[in-house]
Amino acid sequence: MALVPPHGGKGLVCSLLTGSDLDAEKQKAAGLKKIQISAQAKGDLIMMGIGGFSPLDGFMTKADWKGVCENMLLADGTFWPVPVMLTASKDESDGINVGDEITLEREGEIYATMKVTEKYEMTDEDKKWESELVYKGAGEDSQGDFMKTALEDHPGVQMVMARKAICLAGPVKVLSEGEYPTEYKGIYLRPAQTREIFEEKGWSKIAALQLRNPMHRSHEYLCKIAVEVCDGVIIHSLIGNLKPGDIPASVRVKCIDTLVNGYFVKDNVVQGGYPLDMRYAGPREALLHATFRQNYGVSRMIIGRDHAGVGDFYGMFEAQDIFDKMPKPDDPGKRLLCEPLKIDWTFYCFKCDGMASMRTCPHGKDDRVILSGTKLRKMLSDGSDIPDHFGRDEVLTILRGYYEGLTEKVEIKMQKAASGEAM
Amino acid sequence: MALVPPHGGKGLVCSLLTGSDLDAEKQKAAGLKKIQISAQAKGDLIMMGIGGFSPLDGFMTKADWKGVCENMLLADGTFWPVPVMLTASKDESDGINVGDEITLEREGEIYATMKVTEKYEMTDEDKKWESELVYKGAGEDSQGDFMKTALEDHPGVQMVMARKAICLAGPVKVLSEGEYPTEYKGIYLRPAQTREIFEEKGWSKIAALQLRNPMHRSHEYLCKIAVEVCDGVIIHSLIGNLKPGDIPASVRVKCIDTLVNGYFVKDNVVQGGYPLDMRYAGPREALLHATFRQNYGVSRMIIGRDHAGVGDFYGMFEAQDIFDKMPKPDDPGKRLLCEPLKIDWTFYCFKCDGMASMRTCPHGKDDRVILSGTKLRKMLSDGSDIPDHFGRDEVLTILRGYYEGLTEKVEIKMQKAASGEAM
Repeated sequence: MALVPPHGGKGLVCSLLTGSDLDAEKQKAAGLKKIQISAQAKGDLIMMGIGGFSPLDGFMTKADWKGVCENMLLADGTFWPVPVMLTASKDESDGINVGDEITLEREGEIYATMKVTEKYEMTDEDKKWESELVYKGAGEDSQGDFMKTALEDHPGVQMVMARKAICLAGPVKVLSEGEYPTEYKGIYLRPAQTREIFEEKGWSKIAALQLRNPMHRSHEYLCKIAVEVCDGVIIHSLIGNLKPGDIPASVRVKCIDTLVNGYFVKDNVVQGGYPLDMRYAGPREALLHATFRQNYGVSRMIIGRDHAGVGDFYGMFEAQDIFDKMPKPDDPGKRLLCEPLKIDWTFYCFKCDGMASMRTCPHGKDDRVILSGTKLRKMLSDGSDIPDHFGRDEVLTILRGYYEGLTEKVEIKMQKAASGEAM
Repeated sequence: MALVPPHGGKGLVCSLLTGSDLDAEKQKAAGLKKIQISAQAKGDLIMMGIGGFSPLDGFMTKADWKGVCENMLLADGTFWPVPVMLTASKDESDGINVGDEITLEREGEIYATMKVTEKYEMTDEDKKWESELVYKGAGEDSQGDFMKTALEDHPGVQMVMARKAICLAGPVKVLSEGEYPTEYKGIYLRPAQTREIFEEKGWSKIAALQLRNPMHRSHEYLCKIAVEVCDGVIIHSLIGNLKPGDIPASVRVKCIDTLVNGYFVKDNVVQGGYPLDMRYAGPREALLHATFRQNYGVSRMIIGRDHAGVGDFYGMFEAQDIFDKMPKPDDPGKRLLCEPLKIDWTFYCFKCDGMASMRTCPHGKDDRVILSGTKLRKMLSDGSDIPDHFGRDEVLTILRGYYEGLTEKVEIKMQKAASGEAM
């Protein structure tokens, strides 16, 4: 049995240059007109570099953008669930014309060069149209005026609306993977690397767990169900940017290491990280998760309750249902081949005497150990006891340590401020 | 999504007569030459009656028997894993000729009539040849002289060798389902009934758990994994004959009821029973389990550790491996479409703090609650405490009650015998 092929039918499309090609392009890049890119675009570029966004080889044309918003299809009919956009202000893009090569930079680092094949304007009306199509959930009634609420509270929509007015499309040459190879050594794996690992293990049916929060027993249980029915599982963390207040990737990775060491059969698990920021695109983001996982060699994407959820914008299982509604082009190259592994809300249940889900546990609320993320963060940061069976002790110890560190930092700041006042 | 079609590509092949057809055939049957059939043949006949053995409509010809033994294929190229035979002694079959109709009877009940299309002899050498092909495991080294050991200890081989010398083949008309519809009302379900139940529930991906022993937490866990990844599960018990000393079906069914009531989400589970005896055919029997489950509408057959095992004759996972080695005819009608849901050895683990399997639990023997069937029976019958987490209390109470009843019967017998002696 072979691994699932990369999405798009063209193998892994990797735009990352290496060796003398890289040196030459870097030299050329220094002389080109520069555009400052967003954190999201940086992640998108690195994914294009390493083949994680196959078959995309650059940012989207207007036709691609329109097709993706309306039908989840690129202009050539290939499935793709969310826009991947490069934008600049009118001033920044002034003097950039179709046919030009430009340099894409962020915080002093050159990430890519791009050959501009299209330059088009996007109005606020266009962005609202996109937001309604891409970010609005299925339960329309409950949302009232979606855009009104979303403009206030939806981080994904806010990111769309904050995009600049001029879109630049075209193929890229990627020159840097940023901090990921050094800062997340051993965790940051390129699709070619995960595919090699899976092949060496003789796996073909591989599940992925998407993680952006610390891993507790409910996530562990999702993985363990996957291990029972697949050849193995990759615990695949977002190592790009999150919302302020979220737990940093380095801490989350340490938690996963601890869990894998103490509670998994190591042969059946791989840990990895991918360099994207959260888009907060709800169900469509769940489809993106499956799409790029296919490039990593994953055939089953674990989709639990409220996967990639944002506030109250989506139904608890909309991210599962969307897999039944997405377009399925006849050409398997253009179709998403990574299937969802849909699992219900999971928790520890005293009467079940173990982990369970809403599909397997007939007992009541009082028998179950359920904590919201918000409540857990509060309990960890104020040092109160976490209910038994919610997490593994070793993991909770790491998280407590992280929160204690935060508190110390705040106390030091306060002490400094206080002594400053006294002087 | 539709249910998996019945095996063989011909829909449900049901030979059971009803209404006036049944009355007429019964009248005719009374006047035909009678053959006394084995308990196994009775079960086979009822399965042919209700479509459980689709596409079989009668007992096997020599060509079918040979193809099944050698290649798991009927003479027409349809997959079938074990012989389904009707035999008689030379005396009994004397005067029966090809073209005759005969009556098949057991313990005074007429189960079927059969049109004899072939009559052939089977020597002890033929039966040994069959036994080696059908019953011998893959681990040849460990078995030494298979037939020597098997003749002494293998109940399946012993059943083959005990078959009579003359085989009668031909299509049957089934006249009775025996005691099953009354004795197992609500549990004994025909394939058409389970299919109707599944369709009403809107299920298409359905797993089956095969049970011939009382259901403990390891079985419960297999079902619960299946519930997570399928639309639902049927807990499908053998309600035919077992070895002496095994727990009767009525007690096992009560245990399952109790489990389903207390520990399952009822909407996701169906309980049913099928009227076959154990054949003790090891890996080949696992394939038979999947084959007839397909007729019941099941698409995934749960195959755990030592499924349908017999003593030490088979490797712990041979019944899983055989699904990778069986013939797969190009014609989907002739191919087995019910796939295995392979799950490793499951148990409660204290360190995991719940149920686990060898694929998910990295801990040691001492952390796990594992009891052999033999040891459990001993503990139940001598009233000793069963280790925590092994079974559900409510189920263990039923089993203790059953064993106490047995002991009382023995004591009453002994008292009677003693008072008899005193008189």
